[in-house]
Amino acid sequence: MPQTVDHVRLSADGTKLVILDQRRLPLHREYLTLDTAERMFEAIRTLAVRGAPAIGIFAGFAMYVLAQQMPQRRPEFDAAFHKTASYLNASRPTAVNLSWALKRMEQVVDGHPEASVAELTGLLGAQAQAILDEDIAMCRSISEYGLSLLHDGDAVLTHCNAGPIATSRYGTAIGPLILGAERGRSMKAFADETRPLLQGARLTSWELQNAGVDVTLICDNMASAVMKNGWVQYCFVGCDRVAANGDTANKIGTSGVAILAKHYGIPFYVLGPTSTIDLSCPTGAEIRIELRDPEEIREKWYAEPMAPEGVKCYNPAFDVTDHSLISGIITEKGICRPPYTDSLKTLFE
Amino acid sequence: MPQTVDHVRLSADGTKLVILDQRRLPLHREYLTLDTAERMFEAIRTLAVRGAPAIGIFAGFAMYVLAQQMPQRRPEFDAAFHKTASYLNASRPTAVNLSWALKRMEQVVDGHPEASVAELTGLLGAQAQAILDEDIAMCRSISEYGLSLLHDGDAVLTHCNAGPIATSRYGTAIGPLILGAERGRSMKAFADETRPLLQGARLTSWELQNAGVDVTLICDNMASAVMKNGWVQYCFVGCDRVAANGDTANKIGTSGVAILAKHYGIPFYVLGPTSTIDLSCPTGAEIRIELRDPEEIREKWYAEPMAPEGVKCYNPAFDVTDHSLISGIITEKGICRPPYTDSLKTLFE
Repeated sequence: MPQTVDHVRLSADGTKLVILDQRRLPLHREYLTLDTAERMFEAIRTLAVRGAPAIGIFAGFAMYVLAQQMPQRRPEFDAAFHKTASYLNASRPTAVNLSWALKRMEQVVDGHPEASVAELTGLLGAQAQAILDEDIAMCRSISEYGLSLLHDGDAVLTHCNAGPIATSRYGTAIGPLILGAERGRSMKAFADETRPLLQGARLTSWELQNAGVDVTLICDNMASAVMKNGWVQYCFVGCDRVAANGDTANKIGTSGVAILAKHYGIPFYVLGPTSTIDLSCPTGAEIRIELRDPEEIREKWYAEPMAPEGVKCYNPAFDVTDHSLISGIITEKGICRPPYTDSLKTLFE
Repeated sequence: MPQTVDHVRLSADGTKLVILDQRRLPLHREYLTLDTAERMFEAIRTLAVRGAPAIGIFAGFAMYVLAQQMPQRRPEFDAAFHKTASYLNASRPTAVNLSWALKRMEQVVDGHPEASVAELTGLLGAQAQAILDEDIAMCRSISEYGLSLLHDGDAVLTHCNAGPIATSRYGTAIGPLILGAERGRSMKAFADETRPLLQGARLTSWELQNAGVDVTLICDNMASAVMKNGWVQYCFVGCDRVAANGDTANKIGTSGVAILAKHYGIPFYVLGPTSTIDLSCPTGAEIRIELRDPEEIREKWYAEPMAPEGVKCYNPAFDVTDHSLISGIITEKGICRPPYTDSLKTLFE
């Protein structure tokens, strides 16, 4: 009995891909029905589907759908299949799951040179289903391991979205919290809003709220204050690609969270499936970082709320920078150096 | 010959306060004319006027305007004056300049017990003018000291807005860049957009662009990536209150910038006038932090651009978290610990 998920699934007749449009959440629950490679490419590029594992699942079902439209004899089928896989693979460069899933689908074709296209199509459907089923098992396992670290009352800070809709079920980074909530455990969460596209505000806080987890939404720049307040015991984040030495590519701002966590002595964990680990990539320096449209920063402003109703927000207007972090305080009377207890007083003498 | 500034000034007849509405920038250059204490209170609270020095200047002229409406005989005048000063002082708790400027105005009243109200009003006008004039001199001096640190080609990262409209002229944190541009020097700037109210996107990038400084707008969570890229030689930030030991309260997120700067070995400077230094406050722990409306995070979204046209943006979708910052990588096969070069490889054996 195949397991399915609502947010990436096949149409009833199996000829189309149906996905939850993540760009419209949390206010609108809308689905897209996709049956061309071009629209699938756009769905990935514009983040209608997002989250490295979810993109992998999407890619598997996408190739299964598109295979049905290809020439129904070989080797024409093979050529069309590989061409389409290459095309979809170019939609986003950083997440490894996309190319990983496409490669699995291509290996089905290459591994069965004698099969008919009809037989191949059946095998491709099974492979797409396997990618999904493995992800469900993976998320559950990661969630269990993560939950094993947590005690009741602990709060976890997370960045971006590595929840159910970024994967299959539970998610990775927030999987332990959702699993814990199912079991009646009482952990809290702080969700970075994650500019510029606000996955934390729109998706993570919505998912955690739906799961009954006590979540507080903060602007990204408030993480330092939240940590300093002693409100966070762990940082849990997802990953898009992990290099062989452990360098981890994840949503912009993740490295900043890690530096803050180190400063405040808070453990910082990366949660992700082995499919995101790329041993062929020795260090993070070899990971290509996607540059996106500047207008996402400058102009992507909406006239409606960007987070679910009733979500708690912690909204301090300022924070305190410890003096040990300041190289100098420049006044109209000159530049003060540490120790400031002396140098500032001198200004008034 | 009194110096004036466009963004905080008196009406031609001296009976009203005219300010540039900073909430409407950069798309709309609109002025508010204020002649009641209630509207002045609201102008501070809602950030129509903002920036610690500008609030001090505003408070001086505000008390001068309101004094003209008070009972024109003593001691009724004195009572009304102190009551109004206390009222305005409650509009925002963190910046010391507000109470500092109000106290200066009150001392004019208290220091001239024999003066007529007409004489007092003249003295109050002069005192408000003095606060402004001193700020202009202060900003110029701070800008000179800051500029003395910079070499051509250097880039400065700043957070929030400590520019001309947050002060009188030049500003503090970005004063060195504006002064440098006037002299034909070629420094660059990175402006954190500064959520939730986007002072960096709306005000700093606009002011630097107007001054001819090469500025790139980033989301707050991109500062780590920009620093890692080696693009920033200095961090310059303003301050709202500096404690005796040098602990500095400034816009939320400033402490995070400082921690990142320390991690990457980038000098981090606080720029501000002596009026923001509060020797009666021993450490940052004694500084009261303002909590603002949660809806600023959740719902304050506009349907129009929030940064000036043509401003450059650096918009990576991901960054790389160095392995040394990660306590563990949790996979469905277990939790990997450093050194990852070994533990990750073991996963595949």
